[in-house]
Amino acid sequence: MKYLPVIPLTAENFRQYGDVIELQDQPSFQINYGMADRHHAQAKVDVRDDKGYPVISLVHSKKYELPQKIKIVERHPLGSQAFIPRDKTAFVVVVAGAGDTVQASQLKAFKTNGEQGINYHTGIWHGLLLTPFDAMSFICVDRDGSGENCEQHHFSEQDQYTLDIKV
Amino acid sequence: MKYLPVIPLTAENFRQYGDVIELQDQPSFQINYGMADRHHAQAKVDVRDDKGYPVISLVHSKKYELPQKIKIVERHPLGSQAFIPRDKTAFVVVVAGAGDTVQASQLKAFKTNGEQGINYHTGIWHGLLLTPFDAMSFICVDRDGSGENCEQHHFSEQDQYTLDIKV
Repeated sequence: MKYLPVIPLTAENFRQYGDVIELQDQPSFQINYGMADRHHAQAKVDVRDDKGYPVISLVHSKKYELPQKIKIVERHPLGSQAFIPRDKTAFVVVVAGAGDTVQASQLKAFKTNGEQGINYHTGIWHGLLLTPFDAMSFICVDRDGSGENCEQHHFSEQDQYTLDIKV
Repeated sequence: MKYLPVIPLTAENFRQYGDVIELQDQPSFQINYGMADRHHAQAKVDVRDDKGYPVISLVHSKKYELPQKIKIVERHPLGSQAFIPRDKTAFVVVVAGAGDTVQASQLKAFKTNGEQGINYHTGIWHGLLLTPFDAMSFICVDRDGSGENCEQHHFSEQDQYTLDIKV
Protein backbone atom coordinates (compact mmCIF):
# COMPACT_ATOMS: atom_id res chain seq x y z
CA MET A 1 0.00 0.00 0.00
CA LYS A 2 1.37 3.43 -0.97
CA TYR A 3 0.46 6.07 1.58
CA LEU A 4 0.11 9.73 0.64
CA PRO A 5 1.46 12.00 3.40
CA VAL A 6 -0.81 14.81 4.56
CA ILE A 7 0.91 18.07 5.48
CA PRO A 8 -0.49 21.31 6.94
CA LEU A 9 -1.73 23.75 4.28
CA THR A 10 0.04 27.09 3.94
CA ALA A 11 -0.13 29.83 1.31
CA GLU A 12 3.50 29.01 0.57
CA ASN A 13 3.25 25.27 -0.05
CA PHE A 14 0.00 25.66 -2.02
CA ARG A 15 1.18 28.53 -4.21
CA GLN A 16 1.76 26.49 -7.37
CA TYR A 17 -1.74 24.98 -7.14
CA GLY A 18 -3.87 27.90 -6.06
CA ASP A 19 -4.73 30.39 -3.33
CA VAL A 20 -5.31 29.90 0.38
CA ILE A 21 -8.19 32.04 1.64
CA GLU A 22 -7.76 32.93 5.31
CA LEU A 23 -7.64 35.92 7.62
CA GLN A 24 -4.30 35.26 9.25
CA ASP A 25 -1.19 37.18 8.21
CA GLN A 26 -3.01 39.05 5.48
CA PRO A 27 -3.01 42.80 5.02
CA SER A 28 -6.40 44.46 5.35
CA PHE A 29 -7.93 47.90 4.97
CA GLN A 30 -10.83 49.57 6.71
CA ILE A 31 -14.20 50.01 5.04
CA ASN A 32 -17.61 51.19 6.24
CA TYR A 33 -16.15 54.15 8.14
CA GLY A 34 -13.92 51.97 10.26
CA MET A 35 -16.57 49.43 11.19
CA ALA A 36 -15.16 46.64 9.00
CA ASP A 37 -11.78 45.28 7.86
CA ARG A 38 -11.49 44.03 4.31
CA HIS A 39 -8.85 41.39 3.58
CA HIS A 40 -8.93 42.10 -0.10
CA ALA A 41 -8.63 39.78 -3.07
CA GLN A 42 -7.36 36.67 -1.35
CA ALA A 43 -8.25 34.86 -4.56
CA LYS A 44 -8.98 35.93 -8.11
CA VAL A 45 -11.91 34.24 -9.81
CA ASP A 46 -10.71 33.22 -13.25
CA VAL A 47 -13.10 32.53 -16.13
CA ARG A 48 -11.26 32.01 -19.37
CA ASP A 49 -13.86 32.22 -22.10
CA ASP A 50 -16.80 34.40 -23.10
CA LYS A 51 -19.34 31.55 -22.79
CA GLY A 52 -18.71 31.29 -19.07
CA TYR A 53 -19.40 33.39 -16.00
CA PRO A 54 -18.72 32.87 -12.30
CA VAL A 55 -21.40 31.66 -9.94
CA ILE A 56 -21.71 31.22 -6.19
CA SER A 57 -22.97 27.81 -5.08
CA LEU A 58 -23.32 26.04 -1.75
CA VAL A 59 -21.91 22.53 -1.37
CA HIS A 60 -22.74 20.23 1.50
CA SER A 61 -20.27 17.36 1.86
CA LYS A 62 -20.83 14.21 3.90
CA LYS A 63 -18.22 12.92 6.33
CA TYR A 64 -15.71 10.62 4.61
CA GLU A 65 -14.42 7.48 6.26
CA LEU A 66 -10.64 7.00 6.26
CA PRO A 67 -8.53 5.47 4.85
CA GLN A 68 -9.50 6.67 1.34
CA LYS A 69 -7.89 5.55 -1.92
CA ILE A 70 -7.18 8.40 -4.32
CA LYS A 71 -8.75 6.86 -7.42
CA ILE A 72 -9.49 9.93 -9.44
CA VAL A 73 -8.47 13.52 -10.09
CA GLU A 74 -10.20 16.16 -12.17
CA ARG A 75 -9.41 19.58 -13.59
CA HIS A 76 -11.38 22.55 -14.86
CA PRO A 77 -9.65 23.95 -17.95
CA LEU A 78 -11.94 26.99 -18.26
CA GLY A 79 -11.88 28.43 -14.77
CA SER A 80 -10.73 28.52 -11.18
CA GLN A 81 -12.71 26.83 -8.40
CA ALA A 82 -12.85 28.00 -4.78
CA PHE A 83 -14.18 26.20 -1.71
CA ILE A 84 -14.51 28.20 1.49
CA PRO A 85 -15.90 26.37 4.52
CA ARG A 86 -18.77 27.81 6.51
CA ASP A 87 -17.90 25.44 9.34
CA LYS A 88 -14.74 25.92 11.38
CA THR A 89 -13.61 22.39 10.61
CA ALA A 90 -10.49 21.13 8.86
CA PHE A 91 -10.68 19.30 5.56
CA VAL A 92 -8.19 17.70 3.17
CA VAL A 93 -7.19 19.08 -0.22
CA VAL A 94 -5.53 16.76 -2.76
CA VAL A 95 -3.84 18.26 -5.80
CA ALA A 96 -1.43 17.30 -8.58
CA GLY A 97 0.15 19.62 -11.15
CA ALA A 98 -1.14 21.41 -14.20
CA GLY A 99 -0.63 20.03 -17.71
CA ASP A 100 -2.47 17.72 -20.07
CA THR A 101 -1.36 14.54 -18.33
CA VAL A 102 -1.15 13.70 -14.66
CA GLN A 103 0.75 11.05 -12.67
CA ALA A 104 -0.13 9.63 -9.28
CA SER A 105 3.42 10.49 -8.18
CA GLN A 106 2.51 14.20 -8.50
CA LEU A 107 -0.19 13.97 -5.82
CA LYS A 108 0.09 16.16 -2.72
CA ALA A 109 -2.33 16.24 0.21
CA PHE A 110 -2.85 19.20 2.54
CA LYS A 111 -4.87 19.49 5.73
CA THR A 112 -6.48 22.87 6.40
CA ASN A 113 -6.40 24.49 9.83
CA GLY A 114 -10.16 24.83 10.25
CA GLU A 115 -10.23 28.43 9.03
CA GLN A 116 -8.75 28.17 5.56
CA GLY A 117 -10.50 27.97 2.22
CA ILE A 118 -8.78 27.26 -1.09
CA ASN A 119 -9.03 28.34 -4.72
CA TYR A 120 -7.72 25.87 -7.31
CA HIS A 121 -6.17 27.75 -10.20
CA THR A 122 -7.52 27.04 -13.67
CA GLY A 123 -6.41 23.66 -14.98
CA ILE A 124 -4.90 22.28 -11.75
CA TRP A 125 -5.59 18.55 -11.31
CA HIS A 126 -7.22 17.94 -7.93
CA GLY A 127 -8.92 15.17 -6.02
CA LEU A 128 -12.41 15.19 -4.59
CA LEU A 129 -12.81 17.51 -1.62
CA LEU A 130 -12.24 15.25 1.39
CA THR A 131 -14.13 15.98 4.61
CA PRO A 132 -12.98 13.23 7.02
CA PHE A 133 -13.56 15.19 10.25
CA ASP A 134 -17.24 16.02 9.91
CA ALA A 135 -19.95 16.79 7.38
CA MET A 136 -19.27 20.33 6.14
CA SER A 137 -20.84 23.13 4.15
CA PHE A 138 -18.81 25.16 1.68
CA ILE A 139 -19.29 28.24 -0.43
CA CYS A 140 -18.08 27.38 -3.92
CA VAL A 141 -17.14 30.01 -6.51
CA ASP A 142 -16.50 28.63 -9.98
CA ARG A 143 -17.50 28.83 -13.62
CA ASP A 144 -20.89 28.11 -15.12
CA GLY A 145 -21.89 28.30 -18.77
CA SER A 146 -21.66 26.15 -21.86
CA GLY A 147 -18.47 24.31 -22.83
CA GLU A 148 -16.63 21.35 -21.31
CA ASN A 149 -15.09 22.43 -18.02
CA CYS A 150 -14.48 19.11 -16.27
CA GLU A 151 -11.88 16.52 -17.27
CA GLN A 152 -11.28 13.43 -15.19
CA HIS A 153 -8.35 11.06 -14.88
CA HIS A 154 -8.72 7.63 -13.24
CA PHE A 155 -5.59 6.09 -11.73
CA SER A 156 -5.03 2.38 -12.32
CA GLU A 157 -5.30 0.27 -9.18
CA GLN A 158 -1.53 -0.13 -8.84
CA ASP A 159 -1.07 3.65 -9.04
CA GLN A 160 -3.61 4.48 -6.36
CA TYR A 161 -2.30 6.11 -3.21
CA THR A 162 -4.07 5.68 0.10
CA LEU A 163 -4.76 8.65 2.32
CA ASP A 164 -5.06 8.19 6.06
CA ILE A 165 -4.90 10.53 9.01
CA LYS A 166 -4.77 9.84 12.71
CA VAL A 167 -7.75 11.89 13.83
CA MET B 1 -37.81 60.42 13.96
CA LYS B 2 -38.62 58.29 10.90
CA TYR B 3 -38.16 54.60 11.64
CA LEU B 4 -37.31 52.11 8.90
CA PRO B 5 -39.13 48.82 9.44
CA VAL B 6 -37.01 45.66 9.32
CA ILE B 7 -38.63 42.61 7.75
CA PRO B 8 -37.40 39.01 7.41
CA LEU B 9 -35.35 38.43 4.25
CA THR B 10 -36.71 36.02 1.64
CA ALA B 11 -35.67 35.27 -1.93
CA GLU B 12 -39.06 36.65 -2.97
CA ASN B 13 -38.95 40.04 -1.26
CA PHE B 14 -35.28 40.59 -2.22
CA ARG B 15 -35.65 39.58 -5.87
CA GLN B 16 -35.58 43.10 -7.33
CA TYR B 17 -32.38 43.92 -5.41
CA GLY B 18 -30.36 40.73 -5.69
CA ASP B 19 -30.03 37.07 -4.75
CA VAL B 20 -30.44 35.32 -1.42
CA ILE B 21 -27.81 32.62 -0.93
CA GLU B 22 -29.05 29.84 1.35
CA LEU B 23 -29.52 26.08 1.42
CA GLN B 24 -33.22 26.01 2.20
CA ASP B 25 -35.79 25.24 -0.47
CA GLN B 26 -33.22 25.13 -3.22
CA PRO B 27 -32.79 22.30 -5.71
CA SER B 28 -29.46 20.46 -5.52
CA PHE B 29 -27.62 17.75 -7.40
CA GLN B 30 -25.11 15.16 -6.25
CA ILE B 31 -21.40 15.49 -6.97
CA ASN B 32 -18.31 13.57 -5.84
CA TYR B 33 -19.96 10.18 -6.39
CA GLY B 34 -22.83 10.93 -4.06
CA MET B 35 -20.70 12.28 -1.22
CA ALA B 36 -21.75 15.91 -1.71
CA ASP B 37 -24.83 17.94 -2.67
CA ARG B 38 -24.32 21.01 -4.81
CA HIS B 39 -26.90 23.79 -4.55
CA HIS B 40 -25.84 25.30 -7.83
CA ALA B 41 -25.58 28.91 -8.91
CA GLN B 42 -27.50 30.59 -6.12
CA ALA B 43 -25.97 33.82 -7.38
CA LYS B 44 -24.29 34.90 -10.58
CA VAL B 45 -21.17 37.04 -10.22
CA ASP B 46 -21.55 39.93 -12.64
CA VAL B 47 -18.58 41.93 -13.90
CA ARG B 48 -19.59 44.36 -16.61
CA ASP B 49 -16.37 45.51 -18.22
CA ASP B 50 -13.13 44.06 -19.53
CA LYS B 51 -10.97 45.99 -17.03
CA GLY B 52 -12.54 44.16 -14.11
CA TYR B 53 -12.47 40.65 -12.72
CA PRO B 54 -14.10 39.03 -9.70
CA VAL B 55 -12.20 38.46 -6.49
CA ILE B 56 -12.87 36.67 -3.23
CA SER B 57 -12.20 38.73 -0.10
CA LEU B 58 -12.83 38.26 3.60
CA VAL B 59 -14.56 41.02 5.54
CA HIS B 60 -14.65 41.21 9.31
CA SER B 61 -17.35 43.55 10.62
CA LYS B 62 -17.57 44.94 14.15
CA LYS B 63 -20.79 44.82 16.13
CA TYR B 64 -22.98 47.86 15.46
CA GLU B 65 -24.88 49.60 18.21
CA LEU B 66 -28.56 50.29 17.55
CA PRO B 67 -30.37 52.50 16.77
CA GLN B 68 -28.47 53.47 13.60
CA LYS B 69 -29.29 56.35 11.28
CA ILE B 70 -29.13 55.46 7.60
CA LYS B 71 -26.97 58.35 6.45
CA ILE B 72 -25.52 56.92 3.30
CA VAL B 73 -26.05 54.44 0.48
CA GLU B 74 -23.65 53.31 -2.22
CA ARG B 75 -23.80 51.39 -5.47
CA HIS B 76 -21.34 49.52 -7.67
CA PRO B 77 -22.13 50.27 -11.32
CA LEU B 78 -19.60 47.78 -12.71
CA GLY B 79 -20.42 44.60 -10.82
CA SER B 80 -22.42 42.58 -8.34
CA GLN B 81 -21.34 42.24 -4.71
CA ALA B 82 -22.02 39.22 -2.51
CA PHE B 83 -21.65 38.85 1.26
CA ILE B 84 -21.97 35.37 2.72
CA PRO B 85 -21.52 35.01 6.48
CA ARG B 86 -19.14 32.47 7.93
CA ASP B 87 -20.88 32.86 11.27
CA LYS B 88 -24.40 31.57 11.82
CA THR B 89 -25.57 35.00 12.93
CA ALA B 90 -28.25 37.27 11.51
CA PHE B 91 -27.39 40.63 10.00
CA VAL B 92 -29.31 43.50 8.43
CA VAL B 93 -29.33 44.38 4.73
CA VAL B 94 -30.46 47.85 3.65
CA VAL B 95 -31.23 48.49 -0.01
CA ALA B 96 -32.91 51.04 -2.23
CA GLY B 97 -33.63 50.74 -5.97
CA ALA B 98 -31.47 50.92 -9.06
CA GLY B 99 -31.21 54.08 -11.14
CA ASP B 100 -29.01 57.15 -11.21
CA THR B 101 -30.76 58.85 -8.33
CA VAL B 102 -31.96 57.46 -5.03
CA GLN B 103 -34.49 58.67 -2.45
CA ALA B 104 -34.61 57.82 1.26
CA SER B 105 -38.23 56.79 0.73
CA GLN B 106 -36.98 53.86 -1.39
CA LEU B 107 -35.07 52.30 1.51
CA LYS B 108 -35.95 48.77 2.62
CA ALA B 109 -34.33 46.86 5.48
CA PHE B 110 -34.19 43.06 5.76
CA LYS B 111 -33.01 40.83 8.59
CA THR B 112 -31.36 37.55 7.58
CA ASN B 113 -32.17 34.30 9.35
CA GLY B 114 -28.61 33.47 10.41
CA GLU B 115 -27.96 31.20 7.42
CA GLN B 116 -28.55 33.53 4.49
CA GLY B 117 -26.03 35.44 2.42
CA ILE B 118 -26.92 38.04 -0.20
CA ASN B 119 -25.69 39.21 -3.60
CA TYR B 120 -26.51 42.80 -4.56
CA HIS B 121 -27.14 43.03 -8.27
CA THR B 122 -25.02 45.47 -10.25
CA GLY B 123 -26.03 49.09 -9.63
CA ILE B 124 -28.39 48.50 -6.69
CA TRP B 125 -28.12 51.22 -4.07
CA HIS B 126 -27.44 49.68 -0.66
CA GLY B 127 -26.50 50.73 2.84
CA LEU B 128 -23.49 49.63 4.83
CA LEU B 129 -23.68 46.01 5.94
CA LEU B 130 -25.15 46.19 9.44
CA THR B 131 -24.10 43.62 12.02
CA PRO B 132 -26.00 44.58 15.18
CA PHE B 133 -26.09 41.11 16.75
CA ASP B 134 -22.39 40.31 16.93
CA ALA B 135 -19.08 40.91 15.19
CA MET B 136 -19.16 38.77 12.03
CA SER B 137 -16.92 37.47 9.25
CA PHE B 138 -18.11 37.40 5.66
CA ILE B 139 -16.87 36.03 2.38
CA CYS B 140 -17.23 38.82 -0.17
CA VAL B 141 -17.29 38.20 -3.92
CA ASP B 142 -17.16 41.35 -6.03
CA ARG B 143 -15.26 43.18 -8.74
CA ASP B 144 -11.67 44.34 -8.66
CA GLY B 145 -9.75 46.19 -11.38
CA SER B 146 -9.41 49.74 -12.64
CA GLY B 147 -12.39 52.04 -13.15
CA GLU B 148 -14.77 53.76 -10.73
CA ASN B 149 -16.99 51.12 -9.15
CA CYS B 150 -18.28 52.88 -6.04
CA GLU B 151 -20.73 55.78 -6.00
CA GLN B 152 -22.06 57.18 -2.75
CA HIS B 153 -25.15 59.18 -1.88
CA HIS B 154 -25.50 61.03 1.44
CA PHE B 155 -29.00 61.68 2.71
CA SER B 156 -29.68 65.10 4.22
CA GLU B 157 -30.37 65.02 7.95
CA GLN B 158 -34.11 65.46 7.49
CA ASP B 159 -34.22 62.52 5.08
CA GLN B 160 -32.37 60.10 7.34
CA TYR B 161 -34.31 57.08 8.55
CA THR B 162 -33.46 55.41 11.82
CA LEU B 163 -33.11 51.66 12.06
CA ASP B 164 -33.79 49.87 15.32
CA ILE B 165 -34.49 46.30 16.26
CA LYS B 166 -35.59 44.76 19.51
CA VAL B 167 -32.80 42.22 20.01
